Amino acid sequence: MPYYTIGVDFGTLSGRAVLVDISNGHVCASSVLNYAHKVIDKVIPKTDIELEHDFALQDPQDYLTVLQHTVNEVVVASGIHPDLIIAMAIDFTACTLVPVDANNIPMSFYPEFRENPHAWVKLWKHHAAQKYADELNHLAHQERTSWIDRYGGKISSEWLFPKLLQVLREDYNLYQKIDNFLEATDWVTSQLTGNIVRSTCTLGYKAIYHHEEGFPSSSFFKKLDERMEHVIDEKIKGVFKNVGESAGTLNQKWATLLGLSEKTIVAVGNVDAHVSAPAVQVIKPGQMLMIMGTSTCDILLSTIEKKVPGMCGVVYNGAIPGYYAYESGQSAVGDIFAWFVDHYISKETHEDAAREGLDIHTYLEKKASQMTVGESGLLALDWFGGNRSILVDADVQGMILGMTLHTKPEEIYRALIESTAFGKRMIIENYLNNGVEVNELFVCGGLANKNQMLLQIYADVLNKEIKMADSEHTPALGSAIFAAVAAKEMSGYQDVLKASQHMARIKDYVIKPIPENVERYHQLYAEFVTLHDYFGRGTNAVMKRLKRMKGNHQ
Amino acid sequence: MPYYTIGVDFGTLSGRAVLVDISNGHVCASSVLNYAHKVIDKVIPKTDIELEHDFALQDPQDYLTVLQHTVNEVVVASGIHPDLIIAMAIDFTACTLVPVDANNIPMSFYPEFRENPHAWVKLWKHHAAQKYADELNHLAHQERTSWIDRYGGKISSEWLFPKLLQVLREDYNLYQKIDNFLEATDWVTSQLTGNIVRSTCTLGYKAIYHHEEGFPSSSFFKKLDERMEHVIDEKIKGVFKNVGESAGTLNQKWATLLGLSEKTIVAVGNVDAHVSAPAVQVIKPGQMLMIMGTSTCDILLSTIEKKVPGMCGVVYNGAIPGYYAYESGQSAVGDIFAWFVDHYISKETHEDAAREGLDIHTYLEKKASQMTVGESGLLALDWFGGNRSILVDADVQGMILGMTLHTKPEEIYRALIESTAFGKRMIIENYLNNGVEVNELFVCGGLANKNQMLLQIYADVLNKEIKMADSEHTPALGSAIFAAVAAKEMSGYQDVLKASQHMARIKDYVIKPIPENVERYHQLYAEFVTLHDYFGRGTNAVMKRLKRMKGNHQ
Repeated sequence: MPYYTIGVDFGTLSGRAVLVDISNGHVCASSVLNYAHKVIDKVIPKTDIELEHDFALQDPQDYLTVLQHTVNEVVVASGIHPDLIIAMAIDFTACTLVPVDANNIPMSFYPEFRENPHAWVKLWKHHAAQKYADELNHLAHQERTSWIDRYGGKISSEWLFPKLLQVLREDYNLYQKIDNFLEATDWVTSQLTGNIVRSTCTLGYKAIYHHEEGFPSSSFFKKLDERMEHVIDEKIKGVFKNVGESAGTLNQKWATLLGLSEKTIVAVGNVDAHVSAPAVQVIKPGQMLMIMGTSTCDILLSTIEKKVPGMCGVVYNGAIPGYYAYESGQSAVGDIFAWFVDHYISKETHEDAAREGLDIHTYLEKKASQMTVGESGLLALDWFGGNRSILVDADVQGMILGMTLHTKPEEIYRALIESTAFGKRMIIENYLNNGVEVNELFVCGGLANKNQMLLQIYADVLNKEIKMADSEHTPALGSAIFAAVAAKEMSGYQDVLKASQHMARIKDYVIKPIPENVERYHQLYAEFVTLHDYFGRGTNAVMKRLKRMKGNHQ
Repeated sequence: MPYYTIGVDFGTLSGRAVLVDISNGHVCASSVLNYAHKVIDKVIPKTDIELEHDFALQDPQDYLTVLQHTVNEVVVASGIHPDLIIAMAIDFTACTLVPVDANNIPMSFYPEFRENPHAWVKLWKHHAAQKYADELNHLAHQERTSWIDRYGGKISSEWLFPKLLQVLREDYNLYQKIDNFLEATDWVTSQLTGNIVRSTCTLGYKAIYHHEEGFPSSSFFKKLDERMEHVIDEKIKGVFKNVGESAGTLNQKWATLLGLSEKTIVAVGNVDAHVSAPAVQVIKPGQMLMIMGTSTCDILLSTIEKKVPGMCGVVYNGAIPGYYAYESGQSAVGDIFAWFVDHYISKETHEDAAREGLDIHTYLEKKASQMTVGESGLLALDWFGGNRSILVDADVQGMILGMTLHTKPEEIYRALIESTAFGKRMIIENYLNNGVEVNELFVCGGLANKNQMLLQIYADVLNKEIKMADSEHTPALGSAIFAAVAAKEMSGYQDVLKASQHMARIKDYVIKPIPENVERYHQLYAEFVTLHDYFGRGTNAVMKRLKRMKGNHQ
């Protein structure tokens, strides 16, 4: 009997559903829908209320709209009988934080809170909680906590407690009315089942939770803020389960909305990065998956737990059962190229592209591909969205140097791509220097599918072969894999390894480094490292000082 | 009897003539014409021959075309009788070097040399002779020459001997056939009179000539290259005269071409920067004139001769008789803004400007004017064309830091303008630190006329009032003043001071610094200085290394 599962992947700007044949991972139908409100970073919708610098919010209603529309569409389009669709699972950006009341309703749904920025979902790239992260980190080191080293010595401003602390400090009245802070992945899953189940994956990476040690102590939280002594009991509610487990079955409302059976099993919510590993057969130690999109996230499997400074976290069973999964990442990657291409390409360059019948990205890629390594004389730092790994610092910014009056747009475009590859090499060398092996590289994500030159640059800068996902929907496929595992009694897949062996999809060719480029990039990388340390490690903290001056204008 | 003079100013991209009433400096007629070939920096005209990096050539035929057209036009347009036009003078960019044969004909006019880049005029901003400048400077310090300190310790790659040495080394065959290397100002003047007269102003600033000590010794030149032992006698020919003196009268050919009398006196050729001083009444010690255009040049008058590192030169009688004139400059200023505005402004931004009925520069200026100091979080180094003062280094490049995904075009535009103001402050503080007073600032040039915000930023960064030229044609007016002095028997102006008192034109209001901005710019300037020294003084010579890698691709 052929069975099917559905995976739904919620990204930064859109969500997509796939309906997958569990025998071979074939995607029978897929559907994508953009969020109506995209990223809310300027004004609160339908108001004139301007947001402060570094705010990045979303409207949870957009998630429900996307969920209903895309799942419905794949069910209808595939023509598969609902009884054969045995399970579904969702994955999400994280930490994307939904503040809800006792009825599990997002605070921003209430008219009385709609004008309050803190009632809205704080998207992963909301960086306005940096000072609270700084405070938390300072205390963690002062108290010599054991857990801080699991997170590379720094808790990111993007994570749960800095964001929660921001709400508490900036609007304690609202904070008191919030009953629970849920990861969006857990909140959407709870809508489907009616049960509040929290994934230990997001808890581990984003909420300082350890499968044996639990959370930081209540005395730690009390020192951070008197009012946080009981924060875990008061604000982090729900049942904890591991990824691959079942969170329940579809409730009547959503079974009807989606056109599925109430028997459909819903797996525990997952994170878009981590969920992707089995979808590209990243299932062994030393394998690293780079998920490349607006930002980039890396998942590295290992048998050992090491204290690696500047990575985002290491969680046992975090991606594949039985292994430690290290997470690291770059806050802005595709976002940087989009910034440049959307706002800094002249009419003339657009016309040149049109003359060649190419869209602007393809045109720039073509021109940049014809350049040799070092030909532009440019070097950039990829910190346009701050630096997640290995500096864990939202207060640094981008830099480009080497411009002359002859510098061309395609040269800047290539330099920006190269800067992200150098940032990646910094991350990999940091693992190696700390005793964690990185043997094989895999890539997935929208950016990797679209840009051949980018992958060649990465192979050359990293001096490693790169294997590619053979799916445009890798995270959603990963969710479908986890759904199949959650429904193991029907699927027959006892664990993720087994499901991955049947359902993963990778291309049958690899990108190989070009020795001449490797050598030249080695030189450029040395320059990158010098500037990285100069601007990033405090020798010249000009970026922080400029940001402070900028802040004074708010 | 009312008399008139004509001044012709040859800039980087165009030339302009003015016909001036010598009694009051009133411009009766003016005419501008662009050079047909502009700056030749990619391919030699009518060939496929690509030029190497940093070449910047011109076609001397363009100068003659502009001369004939513009002078003719002002004579005709004014309706003044040629007998009342008692003198004319020209000024030029420098060092802009014309290699000629024994008949004073530019080598590039001969078909057999037309495909040879070294046969063409090397424009001031030809930077491809840097390695020859380095070699000359190294030897000058090794030999402990006295003259090197008159040029801030460094001879620029833009000047005469590095350019000449480049021809000698890269094409000795052509070098042997060249009879004379003339400044363009002297070459055009020689066309008018038939006499080869060299201005001691250009000789002083660009050819290491001193009114008492003469040139570097033949033994020095021999050490630089055996073949240069007699370079002065062999390649620097002509009569030396001071600015304000007569170079002769118009020859028949040019009197006819221009519609002027053969009695018309032609003054000694001058430099566009230096010639401007009397046109804005910069005639006293401590007064500094900033001539702002594609690049910026400063002329500072003083009673004392000091060794100021990094300035371009100090020449007695160099601008105003009786004073030392220090020259300093920034290789690219307006050029940087043009680079950005011409190539990095999106269609959307152009449309926004059009909606407001503004040209793009005005639109960006308007948006940028609304920002407060430090609001963008950006900081730039203004080295897109290298750094003339105070580093005298063509091998450094531009830098921008502080970019985020929210950085807007007008923010970059403003940061680029600010970077040039910081560069200027560096120059002024360098004079002060070396005991040369700077009391009053004056500004002229195309950029100063067009951009009110720019002048306010300069006043704020420099914390000084700025007085402005009240003419769009300041250098040409300056030439007309020097022409009047050269014809002193008819004009009655015995010296430049006298002529300036009657003919100079400055506005009756000044730009005043805004105290709040001064304070904030003081902070930003401190950051600029740190980065200037880090990238410019060898702490991190990444820019030079990148340029070397880039060069390897040629």
